[in-house]
Formats: sequence, C-alpha cells, structure tokens
Amino acid sequence: MAVYPVDSLKRVDQPTTLINEAQIQRIDERRSGFNRAALGEWGAYLQNERHHFIAKEPLSAALTKMDLYLKDFRDGPVSSSKAPLPEDPVSIARHIKEFAYFLRADIVGICELPRYAVYSHDMEGEPIDLDHKYAIAVVIDQDWKTAEATVGNDWISNAMSFLGYSTSGFIASVLADYIRRLGYPARAHHGFFHEVLEPPILVQAGIGEMSRIGDIVVNPFLGPRFKSAIVTTDLPMVTDKPIDFGLQDFCSKCKLCAQHCPGRAISFGDKVLYNGYERWPADAERCTKQRIGNQAGVGCGVCIKVCPWNKPFKPLHRFTRWTIGKTPLFNSLFVRGEKLLRYGMPKPEKKWWLDLETLEDGSFVVPSRAGHWGNNEPEDRQTRNVDEDGE
Amino acid sequence: MAVYPVDSLKRVDQPTTLINEAQIQRIDERRSGFNRAALGEWGAYLQNERHHFIAKEPLSAALTKMDLYLKDFRDGPVSSSKAPLPEDPVSIARHIKEFAYFLRADIVGICELPRYAVYSHDMEGEPIDLDHKYAIAVVIDQDWKTAEATVGNDWISNAMSFLGYSTSGFIASVLADYIRRLGYPARAHHGFFHEVLEPPILVQAGIGEMSRIGDIVVNPFLGPRFKSAIVTTDLPMVTDKPIDFGLQDFCSKCKLCAQHCPGRAISFGDKVLYNGYERWPADAERCTKQRIGNQAGVGCGVCIKVCPWNKPFKPLHRFTRWTIGKTPLFNSLFVRGEKLLRYGMPKPEKKWWLDLETLEDGSFVVPSRAGHWGNNEPEDRQTRNVDEDGE
Repeated sequence: MAVYPVDSLKRVDQPTTLINEAQIQRIDERRSGFNRAALGEWGAYLQNERHHFIAKEPLSAALTKMDLYLKDFRDGPVSSSKAPLPEDPVSIARHIKEFAYFLRADIVGICELPRYAVYSHDMEGEPIDLDHKYAIAVVIDQDWKTAEATVGNDWISNAMSFLGYSTSGFIASVLADYIRRLGYPARAHHGFFHEVLEPPILVQAGIGEMSRIGDIVVNPFLGPRFKSAIVTTDLPMVTDKPIDFGLQDFCSKCKLCAQHCPGRAISFGDKVLYNGYERWPADAERCTKQRIGNQAGVGCGVCIKVCPWNKPFKPLHRFTRWTIGKTPLFNSLFVRGEKLLRYGMPKPEKKWWLDLETLEDGSFVVPSRAGHWGNNEPEDRQTRNVDEDGE
Repeated sequence: MAVYPVDSLKRVDQPTTLINEAQIQRIDERRSGFNRAALGEWGAYLQNERHHFIAKEPLSAALTKMDLYLKDFRDGPVSSSKAPLPEDPVSIARHIKEFAYFLRADIVGICELPRYAVYSHDMEGEPIDLDHKYAIAVVIDQDWKTAEATVGNDWISNAMSFLGYSTSGFIASVLADYIRRLGYPARAHHGFFHEVLEPPILVQAGIGEMSRIGDIVVNPFLGPRFKSAIVTTDLPMVTDKPIDFGLQDFCSKCKLCAQHCPGRAISFGDKVLYNGYERWPADAERCTKQRIGNQAGVGCGVCIKVCPWNKPFKPLHRFTRWTIGKTPLFNSLFVRGEKLLRYGMPKPEKKWWLDLETLEDGSFVVPSRAGHWGNNEPEDRQTRNVDEDGE
C-alpha cells in the first residue's frame, strides 16, 4: 500500500514543463558529467578523483559496491510459460505497485517508456536498442533524519545517494525477476547500470516535476531527497499521468538551491528550451566538478538539502504543500518563511556518521573539514566559496 | 534512529528463559527441518517438494533468488589499515546501529556471540570454526499490511519470509562490508547462509523472548512477524541486554498459536528443559512437513498470523503492550479480548497478491485453494484439518 497519498495528487495530461518529443535527440550515455570526467575530458585531476570517488569514504563505498554487485541480477531469461494474469491492465498495475510497496519502495509510478528516454549509445559506444513499452519507477527516500543533520556536501553525501541507488536497485531487480517469471521481458536500471535516462520517466510516471535544480525531478513528499530505479518491461499495465503540485511557480520564486550551490551550477534565471524540452539550465560541468572535486567531503547534495520540499511528512508541511498545490498566491510568503525560520540549516547534533577519508593507498585520515555552509544571501555565499576554495 | 522505542524496554541481566551454557551442545546445520527434508530423511515426496519449494510461487521465487544471489557478498578481505574510530565502544555501537537504521533496518541489537550459537558442522559436514566476538542482529518486518490480509498458510506466506530474509540479508551484507573496510573481520549470515543459529542471538541482543511457538523469538513491537540477519564481527562494541516485556506469562496463558497450527506442531503444555535451555517444545518435523507439504499454499506462517503480538504500532496496542510489561494480572483478559474481537482474522479485502502456482515444468496453475482457516477452538480446528487434509 502506498506510503504517501499519491492518489490525492492533481494529475494532468501533459507534464508541467513543455516537451516536444519530435525535437528531442536521444542522449549518448558517455555524455553524462561523471562519464565525461571518467573519460578524462576535464583533465587528469578530475579523472583520477572520479576513479577514487567510490572508495573515498567507507559508508558510501560499501553501498556503491552493493549497487555494482547487483549487476547480473538486472535481466535474465523470460519464462516460456505466460502466467494466467487478470485480463485488465488496471489490476496488473495495481498488483505490481503493491508488490513494489511490499518490497519497501517509498513511491511507485508507471508510464509508457518514452523513446527519447533511451540512451542512444552505451559506455562502449554501442547503439542501445531497448524497445520495452513500459517503465516502472521505484523511488527510495535518502533518509530524512540524515538529511536534517548534513551540511549537504560533507562526508555523508555520497552514502545518501547510494542508499537510494542500491536500495531501489535491489527492489527493481526483484521486481524485474518476478515479471520475467510471469512470462514478460523486464530489466532493472539502477545506479551504475542504465540504458534509460531517469528524469523523463519520473515526470511521465507522475513522480514529480522538473525543478530549478536542473535535470532533477522534485517529488511533492520527498522533494529532491530521493533516488530511483527503473524497471522497463512489456507487461501490459495501465499507466499513471504526470502531476502538477505547483512546483513551476514555486521554483520560479524560490531560488534557494541556486543561492546555496557551492559549485554555482544552478541558474537564477528562467526556464529555457533545450533539446526539445523546457528546463532550468544547470551547468553539468560545474556540478560534476563540485561533486568529484570536493575536498571537504564526498559528493554534494546541497541543492537537495536546502530545497524547501525536502521536509518530513508532518501536518504543518502537508498543509503548506496542499496550499501551494491550490494557489501560487502565497509562494513568495512561504519562501520568505523558509529563509526566516532557517528550515534548511544543518543540525549537527543529529549527526551519526564518522568523518573518514580513505586515501588511495587504503589508509585513513580524519578530514579537517566537513563541507561548508553559507547563509542564504547569494553574494555572501559566493564570496565564502571563493575564499574557502581559493578559486 | 530507531523506529521503535527500544530504549524504553525493560532490560534484564539474564534472559527470561533459563539457559545453562555449559550443557548446550552445538547444533549440526544438517539437522534443521528443511535440511533433513532435503536430505531425504522424511521420504521422497517431501524431498522433492523441498527442492521445488523455491520455484513453487513466483513472488517468493524472485525474493529467494535474491537471497541466494547475495551469497558472495557475505564476507571478503579485511582492510589492512584500521580506521581511526572513537575509543569508546558505546560510540561505535551507536554508530553501527545508526548505519543499520540508515540502511532501513526496523530493529537492531548487539550481543556477544554465544559459542553455542555457532553451528558445529556445515551442510558438507565440515566442522565450523567461527570465533567472532560479537553479533549484530538486523530485524526486518514481514509487512503488517500483508500480515493483515493473509490466512497464514496461503500463497503469500513464503514471500513474507523471504522479504524478511533477503532485505535483512542486503542490509547485513552492506554493514559487514563496511566493518571490513574499517579494518575488522565481519560476516553476514542470512536466509540460506548461516554459520550461526539465530534465536539465541536474538534473545541475548534484546530483540525478543523465547515463545510458545518453539524456537521462535517474539519481539514486543512486531511479534513473530519478522526475519533477521546477523553480522558476526570483532569490531569492539558495547552490547545490549536481554529484554523482559512479560511474554513468558502471556504465552503460558494464550496458546492461540497452538490452537491454530495446521500442522499441530506447537505444544499446549509447559516449557521443558532441552539441550541445556528452557523452551516450549515444538515438533520440528510436523512444522517442516506442514510448510513443505502445504498443497493449498507455499510455506506456512499461521503462528505468526494469529499471535496477539502481531499488531500494528498504534496507541491502543501500545497501551496493552505497556500493561503486559508491567503486570501479568490482565493477561487472561487480554487473551479473551483477542479472541472475542477476532483480531487475528484474515482480511481478504486487503489481499494484493495473485494465487499462482508454478509447476515443476514451469507452467502455471491458478490453485483452487488458498490456505485454510479454522476458528479459535482447538477441537474444531483439529477436526477441520483432519477433514480437509484427509489425514
């Protein structure tokens, strides 16, 4: 059973950001920021840091190893017998979602797999041919309590990401295996292993809307504090519709992520058309460099940390969410309240992890710095960054 | 952070059931019920059913396959560098537990690994030598919503078990990998892969008390509705103490599990001394035969289903739990209330799974029966079983 009231969300026929399918060019997997760094496009330092990225901190290293270990569970033989399933795709979709919730998914959504969401080429440069008709999105919370404690770019950041990647990957892998047992092809895409781009699927499956952070989808209950895995399959299921919870107007006014981004990778401006779809333009190179090159932590999730939608599921916040969904009238007020009440501030008293850096020879150091936190003023924030990083 | 108020539980120096360590003989892994069936000790029919058990139903088959897949993640090389950890074992234990909760464990406890909990021989008959000092128990709820819907011995029973086994196995595997990265040996034990017997660890780590069900530990928040995985390690940690939440008197009066057991494997009598420890005697052969030979479902968890401790974490039930912990005076009343209010009745309207049986040739049938449910009277129950099963 769904954990969050997804059935009460306002559904719309078209996503809240413009998508012109005919104009979208499929993406080559090698063009993602992390892969460009790995291929040496941004110099030897970032290439090396990219390779050391996984082993740099032991919590995230253990979780990353699990995601890598699940590689051979992604796909497999399809049963030659088709199971006697209910005739109607509504019942099948309900059953699949209930199984995902049983497997402890936080949110589940289903859409037709958009052709433009399939990568054009894999990491070896081979063309990708994936013609599954449907996509199931499996969402995992990156942990509210840890999100409260963190600065966002300290030594827990990467572990929060890989908690989401490996846990959603575990669930998607079991779900895909089950569907293949029923006699339908199915493949799990998670963490390091994707033939599909996630954001368009998350939008079409009603998981969230595109946000100012860039190609990052924000969910009304978790904000950007989640990772997801995708199961692509031909099992016939009724699909979900995109949602509209008022994010477009909110993001146009809030800008907290842009103000706090230590890599200055997030735009203060308006949405633009890019590759046939509308988005707030983010600088993938700056973002990747910030995450890989972070010397005061491992990875970065400051945008996740400071987003006002990154909240616990409590009555007051539920009321605010509901109001934003009904009218944009109070959005400026809510943003001012967010800043005044300093909701996004790190709570170090809730910190449970150890600051530990594993060096390339396998020895450890206790790092002298754990992230950096500016206040909400963009000028001040940018000054701090220049000072601290010596740029 | 702990999900349940484990810190408010009454801790005791000795478990609530007598344990005479000097008298306990270590157990040979081949002597478990499932393994005796697999070895053909109970005839060709049960031996074959044991082998078909995993593939018999596709939800549990997918989950079982995941548990098996995680085999090579259980143990591995230990980092040659020791991490600079806090000096005090209290902080280390807290950190390890918080990591397990971050990994979405439902309950975590730590104890010294009792020598008698280590199997004497493995499945190949080789002596087991495991001298890790500590054991970390990782508990996963088998899903309250599914527990409400099920009859207990229908087509979801095995999937509920393997949800617990594979999910706790996933968490224990990541946790053990992390500890090895810190420079300490650690091994995950879960599902099919154990060098240790779990019940004594669960008792010593304060997860629960021994119950009438037999060698099954009942937890105050989940009842018997959980599975667990164990990490054994030498990482120095402060240990937890056993708990006393009033189960011994309650089980002496309740007997619902004995009344409902379709295999008549659970005793109506008193605790006895066995192999140096005190327990309610359960008939492992009858229990195993019921689970493996079940023709109206896969596996069996009727005892889990009907146990009054199998409840959601809600105010009324919390108050009852608290009262039972304070005084045994109202236990008979509570048991009568449980029967009158028919709390343990299946709720078919909440059923989300499909009744599907996979035959040995891989084809499917929709089974004509899905478990069987008797009322609370032992005489009636036993009559029904004899009638239905034609014994």
